Amino acid sequence: MIELTVKTGKRNELLDVTSQVQEAVSKAGLKEGLCIVYCPHTTAGVAINENADPSVKEDVLRKLTELVPKDDNYSHMEGNSDGHIKAILVGNSKTIFVKSGKLVLGTWEGIFFCEFDGPRSRNLLLKMAEC
Amino acid sequence: MIELTVKTGKRNELLDVTSQVQEAVSKAGLKEGLCIVYCPHTTAGVAINENADPSVKEDVLRKLTELVPKDDNYSHMEGNSDGHIKAILVGNSKTIFVKSGKLVLGTWEGIFFCEFDGPRSRNLLLKMAEC
Amino acid sequence: MIELTVKTGKRNELLDVTSQVQEAVSKAGLKEGLCIVYCPHTTAGVAINENADPSVKEDVLRKLTELVPKDDNYSHMEGNSDGHIKAILVGNSKTIFVKSGKLVLGTWEGIFFCEFDGPRSRNLLLKMAEC
Repeated sequence: MIELTVKTGKRNELLDVTSQVQEAVSKAGLKEGLCIVYCPHTTAGVAINENADPSVKEDVLRKLTELVPKDDNYSHMEGNSDGHIKAILVGNSKTIFVKSGKLVLGTWEGIFFCEFDGPRSRNLLLKMAEC
Repeated sequence: MIELTVKTGKRNELLDVTSQVQEAVSKAGLKEGLCIVYCPHTTAGVAINENADPSVKEDVLRKLTELVPKDDNYSHMEGNSDGHIKAILVGNSKTIFVKSGKLVLGTWEGIFFCEFDGPRSRNLLLKMAEC
Repeated sequence: MIELTVKTGKRNELLDVTSQVQEAVSKAGLKEGLCIVYCPHTTAGVAINENADPSVKEDVLRKLTELVPKDDNYSHMEGNSDGHIKAILVGNSKTIFVKSGKLVLGTWEGIFFCEFDGPRSRNLLLKMAEC
């Protein structure tokens, strides 16, 4: 298992970690198989989506906040229920194929660490399986 | 493949199944690898989130029901379209790392069976892979 | 890695690909293990849900569009921000168990390619792991 550190800079942020994940795959020497990316935090997640036009990230974050506002008479007293709910909607892990040592991603795809209660220093766990 | 039984007690409920999953991993003798948890039902799912403060579960369930109300002029006549939609949003499986025989979960993380059309007796399927 | 082609016919559509995936598993000769289905597009996803009553698909698509309308003052200028956001909510891959050469799906479960910016010709990637 590999542990990466991710530093987020805002309360809500989609941080492109594609090159960090690719680097870990290369270092591990995995040629053919799976790389599973796991976020061990309850107010953050992992998504795979467009990394070309940054306005997509803006739209994603704005819409998520419209659907799940920061303040909404939540019971949980820590003020981050929105982050927990967004994390559940986005999901906390992704499974990515590896072929000839490279992550198999679509033309416009990047891997994003999704921060919903930052800024913080976060961990991202990776595991690889040959297959 | 291992089959666990889960009994839910309400129409909407997040049921902590972490210890059941850990027990299955221990019995299977898996030391290093992956445990995949799969919910074979179309109105239920699996989420990983905070299991410390129970108010988080309340907030999650309330918000999901606000976004996807039980009655909303749905076409499907069984009265559980909300459950199908919530299941799709939450997702029906999770992949969890196993290290030294233990599920790798963040400090506050637990695995939840997410019931959206209960109460019912449900199945939860597990599969393990060494890697 | 196996690449399937999927032709969608509408802007928003849930297309049942269960038999295509099962056929690929059979051809590959996988008996016991995992089949991972991965959508390499940023405005489409993969979901597992009811394939018995087609009205469920209608309800899912209608609700997703209510939550994430096509036009909503998005920043991204391509007119498909809704598709990106829906893709993130639904998720871009699924892990399915294989037992005795058959996909392990619940009684009412089917695998759906989820188109959110069609109609298009799309790819669906599969990878299998014995375990």
